[in-house]
Amino acid sequence: MKNFVFQNTTKIIFGKDATDHLADEMKHWGNKVLLVYGGGTIKKTGLYDRVMRQLTGKTVYELAGVEPNPRLTSVHESIRICREKKIDFILAVGGGSVIDCAKAISVGVPYEGEVWDFFKRKAYPTRSVPLGAILTLAATGTEMNGNSVITNMETKEKIGLAGVPAMHPVFSILDPVLTFTVPVNQIAYGCVDMLSHLYEDYFSLPDGTPVQDGLAEAIMRTIFDQVFVVENKLDDYDARANLMWCGTMALNTIIPVGKDGDWGCHEIEHVLSAHYDIAHGAGLAIVTPPYMKYLCQFHPSKYRQYGVNVFGIDPKGRTDYEVGLEAIEKTKALFKQMGAPVTLKEVGIGSEKLELMVDQILQDRTLGSYARIGKPELLGILKEAL
Amino acid sequence: MKNFVFQNTTKIIFGKDATDHLADEMKHWGNKVLLVYGGGTIKKTGLYDRVMRQLTGKTVYELAGVEPNPRLTSVHESIRICREKKIDFILAVGGGSVIDCAKAISVGVPYEGEVWDFFKRKAYPTRSVPLGAILTLAATGTEMNGNSVITNMETKEKIGLAGVPAMHPVFSILDPVLTFTVPVNQIAYGCVDMLSHLYEDYFSLPDGTPVQDGLAEAIMRTIFDQVFVVENKLDDYDARANLMWCGTMALNTIIPVGKDGDWGCHEIEHVLSAHYDIAHGAGLAIVTPPYMKYLCQFHPSKYRQYGVNVFGIDPKGRTDYEVGLEAIEKTKALFKQMGAPVTLKEVGIGSEKLELMVDQILQDRTLGSYARIGKPELLGILKEAL
Repeated sequence: MKNFVFQNTTKIIFGKDATDHLADEMKHWGNKVLLVYGGGTIKKTGLYDRVMRQLTGKTVYELAGVEPNPRLTSVHESIRICREKKIDFILAVGGGSVIDCAKAISVGVPYEGEVWDFFKRKAYPTRSVPLGAILTLAATGTEMNGNSVITNMETKEKIGLAGVPAMHPVFSILDPVLTFTVPVNQIAYGCVDMLSHLYEDYFSLPDGTPVQDGLAEAIMRTIFDQVFVVENKLDDYDARANLMWCGTMALNTIIPVGKDGDWGCHEIEHVLSAHYDIAHGAGLAIVTPPYMKYLCQFHPSKYRQYGVNVFGIDPKGRTDYEVGLEAIEKTKALFKQMGAPVTLKEVGIGSEKLELMVDQILQDRTLGSYARIGKPELLGILKEAL
Repeated sequence: MKNFVFQNTTKIIFGKDATDHLADEMKHWGNKVLLVYGGGTIKKTGLYDRVMRQLTGKTVYELAGVEPNPRLTSVHESIRICREKKIDFILAVGGGSVIDCAKAISVGVPYEGEVWDFFKRKAYPTRSVPLGAILTLAATGTEMNGNSVITNMETKEKIGLAGVPAMHPVFSILDPVLTFTVPVNQIAYGCVDMLSHLYEDYFSLPDGTPVQDGLAEAIMRTIFDQVFVVENKLDDYDARANLMWCGTMALNTIIPVGKDGDWGCHEIEHVLSAHYDIAHGAGLAIVTPPYMKYLCQFHPSKYRQYGVNVFGIDPKGRTDYEVGLEAIEKTKALFKQMGAPVTLKEVGIGSEKLELMVDQILQDRTLGSYARIGKPELLGILKEAL
């Protein structure tokens, strides 16, 4: 196990009607609140009214209409509002995009420079306006970490910042009932996203981390099991609760401790969706199986372990590599069964920009934990995904 | 899954030479430090000198000689010193007893009343002197939670306080190398303690919590595997690291979320060791198998799950109860193999005080999550442990 530092200060308030604790939590925080939300679903479901009742006595400003793959322009607009109105608390109500956008705002407000500097690694955020979240989609895990992914449409860049203490929500409210309205395709994308978060650390060096591996495998098994329960019965509370907790646990940084991490699939997907504006989970579902397949040859024992412990594949009389390939095929089949695309074609991406995107992905990094992935390898992986 | 609130703010600095980060951490904290430690092992191993070098520039007062099952008298003495010297940081260097003692001191100092009030539930601690820890024993998990167990020798009471935010260490340093000197019997007691922490929540209602269960099972498997690696090679770094992380994860409150918890074995053991001053892990090893055996009849499916997922028992053609009993026998055999006692006789306890102790255990509570355990049942369990 490598040396590591772990700290996660976010308070999680989980369960049915957890939103009713908002007013209590808000007693500890500011009075001028920026409410950040997306496309208005929260108005249709009544959540908006419920939140506003809990904010009685506070002055509330609003940023509505945050888009999936949240854009730098939205962040800029809100930073301006926050400074002008002297906002002292940001409340994000929505899924990963809304919360990520709110996080970028929260560190952008007290910073004199351009907030994109943080994403371009020209500066590091140390101060923020305190931020709380009410989660409506089980997926990204942003509700309990210091990560944010923002898209700059001008430069076609989608960049993630990760592990920034100043970007941790001070609290996050997770009511599984709020996810009852999430439709099947979004459920599938969310589950693929969670799984990908697990894969990125699980399939990386060093070996010999049984607690981390076992937790990751437990979450994987739970997702592959509960996703179909939920897709068949959208209002199954226990299954929705399990999936919601899977999403949080998959990226609250308790799993990767002592590991290198890989994160290659995320790097690839970020470039794909910066160019084509596809759903993050859709991009990951397409890229992950061929990415795994390429790396399986370099460290087959871990893919075997995945197959045996997650899918119960019987390894008797077969090589690690054979078991690993079966596990990867099974993964792809389950992604498909969930309702996620597994080829670039399905999301309208052809071979035109492949080389351009590969160059952009590898611009300032190499990929792969088990083997170095350079241009020819990555082109091969993406061609297999066509 | 039940509703829950989760927050754990402790910063973990884990790995070889992690102690060298102490000076950096201490930059954020006070200048008048109370150093709390146990029986002088840290002087023999050189850890004391290493810590003192990191504390250069701070004024350091000392409380040495904290005993196993730390006593209220030690807490009183230190509270007096802290007030007199205006201590503004407490640094605990040692195992669970030392850190628990330091926690009681930390909340006792700013409280005008008698600190035992907190343990007797007459008051709740909300303020504390900030506390850091350097852990030298993988066992109790106190390094990353708000728990403390203190013994009042006058009244023969050993009482635990749990989940108190003000008692969380602000940081804990976990260097597996510092546990290399822990001898086999202490390793065994520590592992039984960790396992018991897992059992107390795992074997409780509600069912249907696969992430929590899967994590608990992964830690159980790791302990049962790595303990024998360590006992055969005391300086095996990776195995020591895995056990250390097991201890922390087993009681950092990420596992019990959404569950009732049981904690009956701990209640029983606290009374045993208040009367006989036996090691906590030893008491738990004795009590746990008959406690499980009694409850297995009321919820055999969970004991079956334990047997299959932790020990790989083949359940084909057998009832849940049969598989459960085999898993419990296996547990007892492994405790013994580790070097822990499995009968009261082995630690010199006869039947003289059983009834007195049972009355004390059940004084203000009932035990058991799967079934209510009253006086006849508890007497039966303890007689089986004779």
